[in-house]
Amino acid sequence: MIVDADHDPIVAFLGLGLISGSLAGALKRGNWRADLIAWGPRAPSLERGLALGLIDRFSLDLPAIMAEADVIVIGAPPEATAQLLPELLDLASSSGEPVVTDMASIKGVIVEAAGTDYPRFVPGHPIAGSENSGVEAAYPELFDGREVILTPSGETDTSALKIVERLWTTAGARITHMSVEDHDAALAASSHVPHMVAYALTSMLADHALSPMKHGGGALRDMTRIAASDPLMWRDIALTNRDAILIAMDAMTQEHEHLRTLIAGADGDAIETFFARCREVRRKHDDILNPLNPQSEQTD
Amino acid sequence: MIVDADHDPIVAFLGLGLISGSLAGALKRGNWRADLIAWGPRAPSLERGLALGLIDRFSLDLPAIMAEADVIVIGAPPEATAQLLPELLDLASSSGEPVVTDMASIKGVIVEAAGTDYPRFVPGHPIAGSENSGVEAAYPELFDGREVILTPSGETDTSALKIVERLWTTAGARITHMSVEDHDAALAASSHVPHMVAYALTSMLADHALSPMKHGGGALRDMTRIAASDPLMWRDIALTNRDAILIAMDAMTQEHEHLRTLIAGADGDAIETFFARCREVRRKHDDILNPLNPQSEQTD
Repeated sequence: MIVDADHDPIVAFLGLGLISGSLAGALKRGNWRADLIAWGPRAPSLERGLALGLIDRFSLDLPAIMAEADVIVIGAPPEATAQLLPELLDLASSSGEPVVTDMASIKGVIVEAAGTDYPRFVPGHPIAGSENSGVEAAYPELFDGREVILTPSGETDTSALKIVERLWTTAGARITHMSVEDHDAALAASSHVPHMVAYALTSMLADHALSPMKHGGGALRDMTRIAASDPLMWRDIALTNRDAILIAMDAMTQEHEHLRTLIAGADGDAIETFFARCREVRRKHDDILNPLNPQSEQTD
Repeated sequence: MIVDADHDPIVAFLGLGLISGSLAGALKRGNWRADLIAWGPRAPSLERGLALGLIDRFSLDLPAIMAEADVIVIGAPPEATAQLLPELLDLASSSGEPVVTDMASIKGVIVEAAGTDYPRFVPGHPIAGSENSGVEAAYPELFDGREVILTPSGETDTSALKIVERLWTTAGARITHMSVEDHDAALAASSHVPHMVAYALTSMLADHALSPMKHGGGALRDMTRIAASDPLMWRDIALTNRDAILIAMDAMTQEHEHLRTLIAGADGDAIETFFARCREVRRKHDDILNPLNPQSEQTD
């Protein structure tokens, strides 16, 4: 593998969709000095990625791509990534030991599938996405200012970790490290359950006799946007991080019922205190939640 | 009152904040051909509105403003509007019978307070707002493409209704009519409960041992944005539309618990069907929820 001042490692994307396509675009934007290549089971999305200038070439032959790549980026949902990993790491062992990283939003099932025999595997998760999907929706700004969580273990190869970090910082992201367990519990609360809440709210509105969604404004726009996310991907997440999601869903129900009790009891002061604390907490996290233009939020 | 081809009616705002300031700005933008004037209990926000060019002049003397205005726009939250109305409509009766309209997000309590003796009162509710508040946050685009719901009764004066409609269409909004009861039930579902859900979610995250909000992305940004809304205003709404809100909160809990059951049972197909329906419903309402640039939503 060539890693010096004049060259970057060759990056291969396994599967080309919104996230991997955006990463490819972000690396192009960042003047990554090596070819970006891709493999997939079918040609159309790869051809599209080539036409969009996101990758330099592609192949439907996985061993051929593996032999050429210095870094393998798996662009698949959690369950597919977990299924692919054992065979892929075997293949990597006999193909020059490239760095392998994934982008799945759940890490427990991934790390379990990867085992401990391939220290150049670096589990990763970019906190970025869209309710749109497919390489057509890719755009290079997707990771600007966003967090990428890596969950290396004590056995993870340090040079492999550094290369994955360089990949993401070139793409505009900032890196943090977490344990696998903390990652899955934190993400259940910060991403998975918010999605479940958006789904439940949208379903409630769809069933309502007055079709209230017709009268929605900016508040409803935001509170239901992610209910248009890919059903297959979120089915996968719901099943793969089930235990942590159920715990966070129950915590959500408790808060909702607590607030209901305050409203039913017409306890104005307690309601106001509850709301005021939320405003304070939300405002304290404005910079994280709006990394690029913190003052840009307007319509309700 | 002068209403002809060369002149528009003089509009007086009682209280100048985000909504009324934005309406004033939108009327200025729409070349409203009459003075925009304002009254308030204290000078600072009125002085600011004058400096920002939203109004032409103001007074702290309510009867003086009433005597001059052709249209009175009450810019106050539901409870304050309800408290103000009886006295205000009395004063209006003896001040040339101006059109009076309000912008409170709950109509039952307003219509009850207004009674039936003043047919030139037109209850209204613009579906627009922001988690920011105050005249400083006002901007003339706030109502562009947004819905304004009017809830006239059979007794409402037709010419008064037409003037209020012209006010809002000049400001860029589109008008619909609803019954008071339907309005309050629909808004409980489409706006009030989404706010309660955002508050409950934010509170859950604030109490979580791992501070998951630190790892939030675009999904969490959107799902918690309105939890930064004005606590006093939302206390008022929670109390004033309590019964309809409790019904919609319970419907939300049912959906959430139903989804929890599907996830706990690892029923992948049912989960996917649930999510797919939500995507379809959300996409069908994209034009309403994003009236200006329906294709502009990106980051997750």
